[in-house]
Amino acid sequence: MVKSIVFDAYGTLFDVYAVSTVSEKRFPGNGKIISRVWRQKQLEYTWLRSLMGRYADFEQVNQDALRFTLNKLGKSYTKTDLDVLLSSYLTLPPHPETGDALRALRSVRKMILSDGTEAMLLPLVDNARLTSCFDRILSVDTVKVYKPDPKVYEFAVSASKVSKEEILFVSSNGWDVAGSKSFGFKVAWVNRSKEPIEELGQHPDYIVSNLMELTRIID
Amino acid sequence: MVKSIVFDAYGTLFDVYAVSTVSEKRFPGNGKIISRVWRQKQLEYTWLRSLMGRYADFEQVNQDALRFTLNKLGKSYTKTDLDVLLSSYLTLPPHPETGDALRALRSVRKMILSDGTEAMLLPLVDNARLTSCFDRILSVDTVKVYKPDPKVYEFAVSASKVSKEEILFVSSNGWDVAGSKSFGFKVAWVNRSKEPIEELGQHPDYIVSNLMELTRIID
Repeated sequence: MVKSIVFDAYGTLFDVYAVSTVSEKRFPGNGKIISRVWRQKQLEYTWLRSLMGRYADFEQVNQDALRFTLNKLGKSYTKTDLDVLLSSYLTLPPHPETGDALRALRSVRKMILSDGTEAMLLPLVDNARLTSCFDRILSVDTVKVYKPDPKVYEFAVSASKVSKEEILFVSSNGWDVAGSKSFGFKVAWVNRSKEPIEELGQHPDYIVSNLMELTRIID
Repeated sequence: MVKSIVFDAYGTLFDVYAVSTVSEKRFPGNGKIISRVWRQKQLEYTWLRSLMGRYADFEQVNQDALRFTLNKLGKSYTKTDLDVLLSSYLTLPPHPETGDALRALRSVRKMILSDGTEAMLLPLVDNARLTSCFDRILSVDTVKVYKPDPKVYEFAVSASKVSKEEILFVSSNGWDVAGSKSFGFKVAWVNRSKEPIEELGQHPDYIVSNLMELTRIID
């Protein structure tokens, strides 16, 4: 019996690759590659800093990843370029079905558990007019380590006021699916683009192709 | 005063992208992309498993990464395909200058500290006729966690019989450079292909373009 759904934010509720549009405007011909390398590096840096015991918040990590990306692609850039690209993370568009799915899941408590800081997440959710959909918006910044460290998922349990077994964790990120399943959550993987499963020895309880399909699990 | 050099193996002493040749033979037209995705996934899985507290040895991780890679690229494969590609890790070629550089660095103790298992590292070094160059070959398999967890670097100190300050750590992998520097080693980054520095808040003491340049640091 699921009493609470905990959603990942970046990629799951919001489209992180939408930054390719603003990237393309500032670096013509490179929008898509910037969005890909930036996302990859951003994740790598969260994992590496966690392993090194050198937590820095996601605003810092996101900027560091963007600077590496532009250096790697041989692009010179200004502080304004950085500011414009970084601020696009505050207005990422939700996936097309996100709003409808959250409203359809009205019978359960809903939370966000994200690598982003509160200062990034609150405006992001507010800009998408989704604030009223959530009971809590949780940032790993409280525990100072990134997913998939089990301390992050444990933090969501303690904040949820229900037991681990009553939580459904939802993520589009295969590595987050593995981490949350390894921790002990019931997990749904939102696999929009038919990716192969990550070979990390963990398997989600459900695989859905979009958030609306979660209603079949909850009903 | 450097008394001991600790070398990373994959990428630093040996060319991991040489697997593109055997990959190309079994999957024509895909050798290079297989070598790239495989390496990336292999590293991701070491980091993610370490964070999840789900260590599996590098033989397992390497096979898991290869299976994901072939699935991602939409290639069907046999057990023989896997066996052939995985066994290529036992005969990776050293970089052109590796042997000469190790012999030129005869005045200091030399060790390897690698994510690989002993069962992978000993034949690899032996096939390259480099066994006599090293005092110790250390595998993270002893500590059951991967780089850049500081426990790995600490293990090298305890095995080296010299103090941390007397060790020069050498790696071509930017994330390993950051991890070893964060731990407290003196670090040389072998940057063969003029990559930008990883933006992880750590900077190597030396940047060299190949292993032979290490002789200038030691002399």
